[in-house]
Amino acid sequence: MDMSERCSIIGFGRFGRLLAKILREEFPVLVYDVRPDTRIARQLGVRCVGFEEACHARNVFLCTPISALESVLKRARPHLRPGTLVMDTCSVKIYPAEVMQRELPETVEALATHPLFGPDSAKNGLRGLRIVFCPLRIDNARLLFWRDFWQRRGVIVLEKTPDEHDRLAAYSQGITHFVGRVLGELHLRPGDISTRGFEDILGVIEQTNHDTWQLFHDLQHYNPYTAQMRDDLVRAFNRIMAKLYPKEGTEESR
Amino acid sequence: MDMSERCSIIGFGRFGRLLAKILREEFPVLVYDVRPDTRIARQLGVRCVGFEEACHARNVFLCTPISALESVLKRARPHLRPGTLVMDTCSVKIYPAEVMQRELPETVEALATHPLFGPDSAKNGLRGLRIVFCPLRIDNARLLFWRDFWQRRGVIVLEKTPDEHDRLAAYSQGITHFVGRVLGELHLRPGDISTRGFEDILGVIEQTNHDTWQLFHDLQHYNPYTAQMRDDLVRAFNRIMAKLYPKEGTEESR
Repeated sequence: MDMSERCSIIGFGRFGRLLAKILREEFPVLVYDVRPDTRIARQLGVRCVGFEEACHARNVFLCTPISALESVLKRARPHLRPGTLVMDTCSVKIYPAEVMQRELPETVEALATHPLFGPDSAKNGLRGLRIVFCPLRIDNARLLFWRDFWQRRGVIVLEKTPDEHDRLAAYSQGITHFVGRVLGELHLRPGDISTRGFEDILGVIEQTNHDTWQLFHDLQHYNPYTAQMRDDLVRAFNRIMAKLYPKEGTEESR
Repeated sequence: MDMSERCSIIGFGRFGRLLAKILREEFPVLVYDVRPDTRIARQLGVRCVGFEEACHARNVFLCTPISALESVLKRARPHLRPGTLVMDTCSVKIYPAEVMQRELPETVEALATHPLFGPDSAKNGLRGLRIVFCPLRIDNARLLFWRDFWQRRGVIVLEKTPDEHDRLAAYSQGITHFVGRVLGELHLRPGDISTRGFEDILGVIEQTNHDTWQLFHDLQHYNPYTAQMRDDLVRAFNRIMAKLYPKEGTEESR
């Protein structure tokens, strides 16, 4: 087996497992995790390895929480070989791009990516799903290879700058997760007087509360545009309340 | 034509027009509005009449804004005939039930209703849509007739007390409209990095911002449980913010 063709996945959580299933169609796949689930690895036909061996693969995918990225990169740095391509899969892009450019040796290539899907949305296949690429330092042929890898599976590849990505994401994925978490606190239930709009509300709750709190936390902390988005939400709430109850302090009960 | 079979609609707005189209399949329909659209009435094959004549029909449907209900009932009171059935169609039920019971002569019957649909959701037919009945004072045969009238069209008839209705509605229709109006302030747009959850967010916005501000205003003011619902939302927002940023005043930028 040619070592140069190996892909490794650092972080074998919900997304790492989905990625393993996709990569093993074309590559031998190595996975590393602090607490590796060897049973699932066996089921998927991928091999659990130590951190160093994972770093020796020709293509290294980072599937750790955003908040673990910097320490993982510092730890990986001495073990990465020239010509290795490191790809993160974080849901924010300015922060990972900055950390990868700072921490990776110059002989190592870097492609920041955000797969806009997960185990839930990929349940019925990848066709029509999307992935964002932010090329940092990567040979053009290699970039084309990975673009083609996803396109062969029907995944739409979008190229954005990290800043464009985070600005757009704050006002789509970021706001969706925030509103879904807030509404999730209310324990709303479908009832016999539900309307179609309410079913959409329940859909938002369901599609955001399945993900880990860690992902939600990191989406809100590591995207610099989400603070603005939350401020906009508070201002919008206050504008609607002021329009409903024009004279302050005179909220009528009916 | 037998006068006893007539239906009249007081308030010929978006919902009044939909109801006219449904009732005319079985009844001669009279409509009253302060500013009647006679062209649309002609198109629908219903007749615009004065307020008094509308009150003389055997079945009187009230399709005015909730906030106009009390003054309309006070004005109608002297013109209603014994045996007339008055049905409101408001999106809240405690308030109209109380006003109808207080303002209607004892010889007049009353059925509070909330059709859980409108021109948008009924665009492709009534089948599977829902209506809530809160019987106030109504002869059993007549109640069965109107239940049957809706069921013949595939509409599911639910019986609730006004209190049950408003409690459930605050945490389904009420919260949907509130969240939809707040999000509607942000001018969110579908983009190429949209996710499925975000599409549900856009669905909520679309399905709530088409209705009149008057309906939204009345839903929030005349349902005594919506103040609680809005307080719950604010508390949920604060709980999520406290969980995201445990130490007060130390919001990190990433």
